[in-house]
Amino acid sequence: MRPTSIHSVSTELSKVFEHIDVNKDQFINRLLDYLRHPSISAQNIGIGEVAELLVSMLRRVGFEAQSFPTPGHPMVMGRWERAPGAPTVLLYGHYDVQPPDPIEAWISPPFEPTIRDGRIFARGAGDNKGQHFAQILAVESYLAMHGRLPCNVIILLEGEEENGSPNIAEFVRAHRDLLKADLVVTADGPLHESGRPVITHGVRGIVSFELRARAANQDVHSGNFGGVVPNAIWTLVHLLGTMKNSGGEITIEGFYDDVVAPTDLERRAAARLPLDPDDAKRTLGLSRLDNPADRPLADRLMFHPTLTINGFHGGYGGPGPKTVLPHEAIVKCDARLVDRQTPDDVLAKIEAHVKRHAPEVELVRLEGMLPSKTPLDSPFSERVQRAVRTAHGVEPLIYPSLGGSLPDYVFTKILGTHSFIVPYANADEANHAPNENIKIDCFIKGIRTGAALLDEMGRSVGSHTSS
Amino acid sequence: MRPTSIHSVSTELSKVFEHIDVNKDQFINRLLDYLRHPSISAQNIGIGEVAELLVSMLRRVGFEAQSFPTPGHPMVMGRWERAPGAPTVLLYGHYDVQPPDPIEAWISPPFEPTIRDGRIFARGAGDNKGQHFAQILAVESYLAMHGRLPCNVIILLEGEEENGSPNIAEFVRAHRDLLKADLVVTADGPLHESGRPVITHGVRGIVSFELRARAANQDVHSGNFGGVVPNAIWTLVHLLGTMKNSGGEITIEGFYDDVVAPTDLERRAAARLPLDPDDAKRTLGLSRLDNPADRPLADRLMFHPTLTINGFHGGYGGPGPKTVLPHEAIVKCDARLVDRQTPDDVLAKIEAHVKRHAPEVELVRLEGMLPSKTPLDSPFSERVQRAVRTAHGVEPLIYPSLGGSLPDYVFTKILGTHSFIVPYANADEANHAPNENIKIDCFIKGIRTGAALLDEMGRSVGSHTSS
Repeated sequence: MRPTSIHSVSTELSKVFEHIDVNKDQFINRLLDYLRHPSISAQNIGIGEVAELLVSMLRRVGFEAQSFPTPGHPMVMGRWERAPGAPTVLLYGHYDVQPPDPIEAWISPPFEPTIRDGRIFARGAGDNKGQHFAQILAVESYLAMHGRLPCNVIILLEGEEENGSPNIAEFVRAHRDLLKADLVVTADGPLHESGRPVITHGVRGIVSFELRARAANQDVHSGNFGGVVPNAIWTLVHLLGTMKNSGGEITIEGFYDDVVAPTDLERRAAARLPLDPDDAKRTLGLSRLDNPADRPLADRLMFHPTLTINGFHGGYGGPGPKTVLPHEAIVKCDARLVDRQTPDDVLAKIEAHVKRHAPEVELVRLEGMLPSKTPLDSPFSERVQRAVRTAHGVEPLIYPSLGGSLPDYVFTKILGTHSFIVPYANADEANHAPNENIKIDCFIKGIRTGAALLDEMGRSVGSHTSS
Repeated sequence: MRPTSIHSVSTELSKVFEHIDVNKDQFINRLLDYLRHPSISAQNIGIGEVAELLVSMLRRVGFEAQSFPTPGHPMVMGRWERAPGAPTVLLYGHYDVQPPDPIEAWISPPFEPTIRDGRIFARGAGDNKGQHFAQILAVESYLAMHGRLPCNVIILLEGEEENGSPNIAEFVRAHRDLLKADLVVTADGPLHESGRPVITHGVRGIVSFELRARAANQDVHSGNFGGVVPNAIWTLVHLLGTMKNSGGEITIEGFYDDVVAPTDLERRAAARLPLDPDDAKRTLGLSRLDNPADRPLADRLMFHPTLTINGFHGGYGGPGPKTVLPHEAIVKCDARLVDRQTPDDVLAKIEAHVKRHAPEVELVRLEGMLPSKTPLDSPFSERVQRAVRTAHGVEPLIYPSLGGSLPDYVFTKILGTHSFIVPYANADEANHAPNENIKIDCFIKGIRTGAALLDEMGRSVGSHTSS
């Protein structure tokens, strides 16, 4: 690890850092205000309102901003392009959030942001409002100090990332000219558990689906009909049992066909990461990691696809016994995909598998997203690393890939742009779970990182090549 | 099948039948009143109130009646013992009902009894209020006509049969002297689909339990933790997969050890039953029966144990996708047992199986009940058959066993009394399901059957041996 003093912070950036420091409390209060607005894409709650809120917010900061309708939820775009000759950075984020249930597990209500122990608790605090709001504040701070930005900036905020981004690909295809950029930076996901910053060069894709089983025209008595009437739950249990074995191997025919082994550069980067299975177990209260037991943690997160059951519901779930034989049951699953798997192909394989093993079960596609990959030796890698190092005072960890999914492929595969994911949230942000939060320190470092990125993009290429 | 005219209806019984005919509307209205009182044992709703209602009702009819506290819900007992020298019949029923959910599937509310198409719709209409109320009306009608009964009658009404009768065994053991009888008759369960009456000589037992899986201390993001954190639902899916295979064979070690093959008499009786798999499929909207495909219907219902999943709940169940990895899940199951399986032994085998295959899964016992069997050649078999034949004008079907479970073993195994199950409800009563109902015709025939039983018990043994 290089010492952080090896290159200096520019005078311009120092001033911006100072401004961030002085305005910290104000920035926190403005984030609390923003988090008070629910924007749950799966339930279509508050989406339009928050999109309009963002347009006003971006305009106040100095962007040309507007909201673009899509067949789903609106895209919000802001542009600042008064740095001719300088590179253009496209900042991506999403303003929609996950449903907050189970609501009873929240210590403070999900849309009444509350500060406890140096953290802001609210749905969306980490995923993703706290992070793209930090980007906006970085631009605001830079403009407040210097009246201009050192590079051109496009900010693109999506309203249905938690629904699987069904419209972003078409939007990016249709607005390719508006989105022309030299690189894309996405602030989403968590820092390392140690608090060290992270730069990620790709994401896993996803395909999610429901399996619906139905037998008989109503629930029946397990005594009068047990052994006679097929049981919708048993049907799904046996089908799922053919899809992944207890050793953790996915047994859907052809599922692994397009899984590409990591490059040497990726393997070496992964080997340098401080991934500690014992840390993961401690944090999550686990006695063991998922099967297969001998798979390295880096491989689990980056180089292997998954098949997760998100929910299984059928029959009686109340207190006490109920001797019922349920006639319908539903399972929700997602599969995380690695390069070069595609949602369409994997779903076709799952569909063929279901047809072969349980033809009476209905498969319903929910969402799909391609994986993405930016080469570890991209010409922008060094600059992004320096910006993060400057903002945090710590050497960032370089991840070949992220475990989760983001619509990053629309930048790498549709725009053909290199894309970097630079998360700002703490590792225990509890995104998608009750008591989601962002550490105030992470939020402020996020603003600093955003500012440092702008600063780096304004420097001529090679200005740091001696370091 | 013998013609129904082969033996005559006694003058006494003819008068009772006439009384029943004249009072039909009044009896129906009184059943509607009774069904308006919820008595859901699993949720402890209305139990005490209905027990008291029954005590008053029995007293008005002419029984000495009282309610006996138990560690659970009260037992209601009525006695009429003014026929010295005549046999004593013990009539068993239960006044508790199943929970009504899913409530939205009911056409009319479960506790607002409604008559449609010659049926009374309400929770408990068939299981079991309509049936034991018919027994009470049979006694009332006999007393109304003759001022006395031809035999002694004890009526025993339980308040937690739908909870697995956790206290009846202890109650019967403790009140053995009060319950001394020559035979037990239980009106519960359905007639044959054809409407033909049924006499059953035993029941399957039951043991029910929950399997609870838990991994991690909270739900986590399927992208950041999929493939890392064990999934509570996958754990249960794989465990269940080791308990019963897709061919329908229960694969818990030792599960079938105590299953006794049916006697020749039982086999022959089963062979005479008009059990039609196609009828069952039509009624229930099925394309096939449960696996194994080649098992005869009689064997499925009477001679084989089952393992039914009553409910499976874990993770997200709302609309749209949710990329969550659930940290807990619960499965409810029941196993129907045949002679000589016991709930304790079978549960011990399931427990050992769970320990071996998924030691982290918690097993919680819910309820247990032994199976029962009365020999097909019992000295009371003929009288019971004649009573049913007289009331219905049709030859009854003789079942060696019932698919469902009743606490019949407390009579056969604790009291050592022969026990007959003589159901009064229609086959499509939808017990344990939405839109439970009893056909008015079945209810009235039930009252007639009750009266004919009393009449038969008053005749000296052998008075019909020439028929």
